[in-house]
Amino acid sequence: MENFVFYSPTEFVFGRDTQSQTGELVKRYGGRRVLVVYGGGSVVRSGLLDTVKASLDAEGITYCELSGIRPNPTDDRVYEGIEIARKEGVDFILAVGGGSVIDTAKGIAIGVPYDGDFWDFYSKKGVPTASLPVGVVLTIPAAGSEGSGNSVITKLDGMHKISVRYPMMLRPRFAVMNPELTYTLPWFQTACGIVDMICHIQERYFSNTTGVDLTDGIAETIMRNVMQNALRLKENPNDYDARANVMWAGTLAHNGLCGNGKVEDWSSHRLEHEISALYDVAHGAGLAVMVPAWMTFVAKKNPHKVREFAVKVMGIEAEGKSDEMVIAEGIEALKAFYHSIDLTTSMRELTGVENPDIEALVKSLNGNMGDTLGFYVPLSMEDCAEIYRLAL
Amino acid sequence: MENFVFYSPTEFVFGRDTQSQTGELVKRYGGRRVLVVYGGGSVVRSGLLDTVKASLDAEGITYCELSGIRPNPTDDRVYEGIEIARKEGVDFILAVGGGSVIDTAKGIAIGVPYDGDFWDFYSKKGVPTASLPVGVVLTIPAAGSEGSGNSVITKLDGMHKISVRYPMMLRPRFAVMNPELTYTLPWFQTACGIVDMICHIQERYFSNTTGVDLTDGIAETIMRNVMQNALRLKENPNDYDARANVMWAGTLAHNGLCGNGKVEDWSSHRLEHEISALYDVAHGAGLAVMVPAWMTFVAKKNPHKVREFAVKVMGIEAEGKSDEMVIAEGIEALKAFYHSIDLTTSMRELTGVENPDIEALVKSLNGNMGDTLGFYVPLSMEDCAEIYRLAL
Repeated sequence: MENFVFYSPTEFVFGRDTQSQTGELVKRYGGRRVLVVYGGGSVVRSGLLDTVKASLDAEGITYCELSGIRPNPTDDRVYEGIEIARKEGVDFILAVGGGSVIDTAKGIAIGVPYDGDFWDFYSKKGVPTASLPVGVVLTIPAAGSEGSGNSVITKLDGMHKISVRYPMMLRPRFAVMNPELTYTLPWFQTACGIVDMICHIQERYFSNTTGVDLTDGIAETIMRNVMQNALRLKENPNDYDARANVMWAGTLAHNGLCGNGKVEDWSSHRLEHEISALYDVAHGAGLAVMVPAWMTFVAKKNPHKVREFAVKVMGIEAEGKSDEMVIAEGIEALKAFYHSIDLTTSMRELTGVENPDIEALVKSLNGNMGDTLGFYVPLSMEDCAEIYRLAL
Repeated sequence: MENFVFYSPTEFVFGRDTQSQTGELVKRYGGRRVLVVYGGGSVVRSGLLDTVKASLDAEGITYCELSGIRPNPTDDRVYEGIEIARKEGVDFILAVGGGSVIDTAKGIAIGVPYDGDFWDFYSKKGVPTASLPVGVVLTIPAAGSEGSGNSVITKLDGMHKISVRYPMMLRPRFAVMNPELTYTLPWFQTACGIVDMICHIQERYFSNTTGVDLTDGIAETIMRNVMQNALRLKENPNDYDARANVMWAGTLAHNGLCGNGKVEDWSSHRLEHEISALYDVAHGAGLAVMVPAWMTFVAKKNPHKVREFAVKVMGIEAEGKSDEMVIAEGIEALKAFYHSIDLTTSMRELTGVENPDIEALVKSLNGNMGDTLGFYVPLSMEDCAEIYRLAL
């Protein structure tokens, strides 16, 4: 086991009707003048935004707004939010939405108190030393951003999608999580979220670190549980307990619990970020394409953990079979799971492009990385190209 | 699933040599003048106390001391600590030890800023609204107090052992956790800690709440993992990874993770507290006596979760067997596990008393409780007496 720091200070307020506590929570964490960040119509149409505003009003908290945040959020909206927040003297950023909204809110939160360009923190030219507090009302369980110290923003100039991690600065103060708010999510978004949260665990699970059987056991349990509940949700999108288990799993998948003591490997995410930046596909849908391709490639060089995943997570019976066979069946079972929740595992089908521009993907990836990518199997650029080809 | 709040803001700094970071952490969390609370000789003999003091010195942090804290810590030492802290103008309490030391530190921390008698918070006459920050250097993984919002103190007058939970006030700011510090723990203490942490999960696991399969799956995984690593430690007390997994499991067992969304039932702890208060036995050893007796009793009235524990945690093969048989085998397997780590499951053997005073135990329990005890099966006083008899 490796040394680690586990720091997850967010207060998670979970369950029915919890959104009405938002104002109280903002107040408890020091907010008096709030920038409310949200996306499109659904939080307005559902009445959620009104409920949140009423709870702010009830505490005498004033607010301004930044709306229309879209998936794969871009730096221009962060600049806009920073300007509004400064002009309005905002002391708290409240994200009402999913990962894109939360990540935008986090970018604004570290940008406001900084003299320079907030992008310095994403291009790794600087490290944030101050942040406005961020609170979350979660509507899409997927990114885990409500409990993570991460933020992913795409720079419009060049379409570079960059993920950063500043655990001491970027963890939200609180996250309100009502599973009922996710009943109306389109099935495609629910499915993409499920792939994303499973992948947040996979990126921690596939590791050469030994002696971490507790962390790995928890990771396996959560992955199995999400897959089971995904199938229940497909049958009945209004199954409260299935929604609740999936929503909570999304947080645990990315708050650090599943990586404690391990060297992590975020290659599938990095490979996918190039696809969603270039072709503007949903991140989770992109992962359903990239993860099996990545597993297929690395299993040839370093099979042990892929085999373990096949047996312990996908439930492949290993007795009397070669490792190659167990691994192949495990990857097929994972693909079958993705198909069962109506996602494709083909990049062609995902992008609608007969010949996705692998050269451009690798070139952009190369601009954002060092000599090799990842740790479980360090990947050369040629390896990455091969993985993209396997994903076609 | 029930609504819940999960709030675990402690920064866990885990791994080899982490104790040398203590001074830095105290400083980060605002400590300038520290009361160092510890137990007996082992932290002195091992050189740990010197290392901790050197790291405080290096940061220019001054300190005073309260030493000699014993198992089942008592209110007199809390009063003493409060007096020292006030006299010396202390702004931070640092616990170097296990649950008894940490719980004493927590009592001092909420006592110092309070005008009245700190015991008001344990007798539930008052609720703490302020606390000095507490930091921990953990030497005994067992109580989970390094990550919990709980404290257990025994009032010498009447020997009432009272557990309180104030999650917003009592969670330590940080916990330094080096598994190597536990190599020299006597096996009996290691074993008692193992029983205690498993029981912290059991008290959350045995519940009538449905739709919590994620929380339950995590709980089952951690319980199985602790049992496996306990047997590895018996073979080799210096197995770093086994020590590390057990140490981290002790935290996860009691930081709330295993109870999220559930109605918990702390009956076994309450039943045990009376034994350790009256006969001054180790808490973990008392639990090894009480848990199987409690399970035996409640399984007759409400079998479902005891059966699930038998199958999913103890690995009992259920096919072709009656529920009664599965449950009986599960409880026997749990007892066999306790015996395998050299603990007794007999109250007579534990206390060395031929006829433990069950009437006195129930009377004291009654003084500390309402009409019934617990939720999985609400227990009358007569039920509690029967459980004590089953434990003889």
